[in-house]
Amino acid sequence: MERALTLAKLGWGKTRPNPLVGAVIVKEGKVIAEGYHHYYGGDHAEVDALKKIKFLAKGAAIYVNLEPCSHYGKTPPCVEAIIKSKAKKVVVALQDPNPQVAGRGIKILRKHGIEVVLGVLEEEARKLNEIFIKYITTSKPFCILKTAMTLDGKIATSNGDSKWITEEDARAYGHHIRDRVAGIMVGISTILADDPQLNTRILNKEGNQPVRIIVDSKLRIPLEVNVVKTAKQQPTLIATTNKASKEKIEELAKLGVEVLMVEEKNGKVNLEDLMIQLGQRKIDSILLEGGGTLNYSALDVGIVDKVMCFIGPKIIGGRNAITPVEGTGKSLIKDAFIVEDISLEKFRKDILIEGYIRRRG
Amino acid sequence: MERALTLAKLGWGKTRPNPLVGAVIVKEGKVIAEGYHHYYGGDHAEVDALKKIKFLAKGAAIYVNLEPCSHYGKTPPCVEAIIKSKAKKVVVALQDPNPQVAGRGIKILRKHGIEVVLGVLEEEARKLNEIFIKYITTSKPFCILKTAMTLDGKIATSNGDSKWITEEDARAYGHHIRDRVAGIMVGISTILADDPQLNTRILNKEGNQPVRIIVDSKLRIPLEVNVVKTAKQQPTLIATTNKASKEKIEELAKLGVEVLMVEEKNGKVNLEDLMIQLGQRKIDSILLEGGGTLNYSALDVGIVDKVMCFIGPKIIGGRNAITPVEGTGKSLIKDAFIVEDISLEKFRKDILIEGYIRRRG
Repeated sequence: MERALTLAKLGWGKTRPNPLVGAVIVKEGKVIAEGYHHYYGGDHAEVDALKKIKFLAKGAAIYVNLEPCSHYGKTPPCVEAIIKSKAKKVVVALQDPNPQVAGRGIKILRKHGIEVVLGVLEEEARKLNEIFIKYITTSKPFCILKTAMTLDGKIATSNGDSKWITEEDARAYGHHIRDRVAGIMVGISTILADDPQLNTRILNKEGNQPVRIIVDSKLRIPLEVNVVKTAKQQPTLIATTNKASKEKIEELAKLGVEVLMVEEKNGKVNLEDLMIQLGQRKIDSILLEGGGTLNYSALDVGIVDKVMCFIGPKIIGGRNAITPVEGTGKSLIKDAFIVEDISLEKFRKDILIEGYIRRRG
Repeated sequence: MERALTLAKLGWGKTRPNPLVGAVIVKEGKVIAEGYHHYYGGDHAEVDALKKIKFLAKGAAIYVNLEPCSHYGKTPPCVEAIIKSKAKKVVVALQDPNPQVAGRGIKILRKHGIEVVLGVLEEEARKLNEIFIKYITTSKPFCILKTAMTLDGKIATSNGDSKWITEEDARAYGHHIRDRVAGIMVGISTILADDPQLNTRILNKEGNQPVRIIVDSKLRIPLEVNVVKTAKQQPTLIATTNKASKEKIEELAKLGVEVLMVEEKNGKVNLEDLMIQLGQRKIDSILLEGGGTLNYSALDVGIVDKVMCFIGPKIIGGRNAITPVEGTGKSLIKDAFIVEDISLEKFRKDILIEGYIRRRG
């Protein structure tokens, strides 16, 4: 199953909005075929593996990290192929999270006399497909809040200098995350302060370029910034409200920028409505690299699922320096957003703390 | 040697300002005696071990984490005892860091035909005695900056609430650190904001109570605060300048508080002078649990040696929330204080990042 999970990861960023799935076929203690879901619309992992042995798997066991599908989608159902292959046993890590089909594939397999083992490395499998699970069950994107701060909690000095909090290897990892998500979101303040490119830059590889999503309730964005200038090469969405000027929307459209009208909430873009709209556009995942105001709003309305907090072991001080989450903030520690299921990663010098936002009550 | 280091730790907090030393005597592949330096003035580790075998160690090897002493101090020199014991070999982790005697013990042993191996687990031995090394070489205390912040870099909400950033197990560890240092230092702002006790509270054990050091340049401390009220039970020093009122000094003295007159620098307590005075009082180590202003000043004047940064996986936000290091701060990231030799520890929920401040060339 570990091998199946590893194979599944080969599809990173390309199967969206489908899940990452790997399959390993074992007969008499030997791996006789491997496969994975390469890209959206391509063969499912089980079929990819079965093809290599001409669908002849008599007496074999198939290890797959997600319940085989039982419905006709872009491809015929995998359970059919498995039954025809005469496999003896199917080991599944995770039941299909889609409530409409969950358990159906397993049921059919069992009805055909195939032994099914469920739940092997389930937690790992769940984490691997956390984006898919969120999206299939809510139709809203999985949102990862990413920050990079010093050991004293600053993302920039009081002068706004932020280059660089972390070293090259940690920043390169940041680009690998961009490579895996459908969208990257910032607020207009970040555009005005840093004029970022918000693209994926990976050494020796053409990265997946996520849709850039800019939250700009009054449509203040200047036409000369990088994200606007390159909108024809990399999709750029600006989420705004009816406060935006019609002329500006047209000007931006000419430059290739799409302006998304979103409901207003307290004079700002309603982030919940934005998530619904992004979900409708098949954006299954967002990397939120906002400034402190947007980050706090996103946490406050409950759209953040995961936190990736890079820490550069530096101290800069400054009462007026900038921190990763600002806004009004909570008055009491007991009302804090809780981050659970923490994992740590160490880079050459920097540290990454990852975790998941606990849902309230 | 690992065993010697473990034994050495049994003396934690009690050998000050002497080092932590453990010794293991091995003969024909078997441990025949173990010892350690129990408390200041007590037997050194080598003698503690040799006593158990009546100083008869013919042909044996002695493992000790610090070079055996060669001078008459509170006790006769260890090299003499080793020579008399007829040990064949001495394995040493770390040469004596005291420049006046470094290498002398080893030289004498070798002159007497005893084989000496130097440098086994040297890094671990250096870390174990980092306090001793700093103090013996500079006569100034080893200063540990300890903070506890949220995952978004806050030590308190905008309302000042800070209970609790971390869970019980991490806080208990904080008390174990207090148990090991000679002094605990805060600024007057922390006293006014939190009225802390600054004592060591350890379950089922009477902790070592460090000297409380309060930096209070204008002697604003109220007489009713906890540290003043308990000054007769736990030594309390207030570092002030000549701006302090003579009457207040006398009042405090009556309550058992000692007021230390320190040089002034920009209208504040000169922390470098304070370190010299604390060193003269045999305070070899300080845990700095200051607020952001004092923490920044301490870093800025270069008195901080080590950083212990606890992180509670919570997010509270707040542009006006309080961060661990404030003051004016650095304008540019490239001028940041660099924390090196990072190590990570995970508690039940919280994380501890430890490291050492890089000295500027």
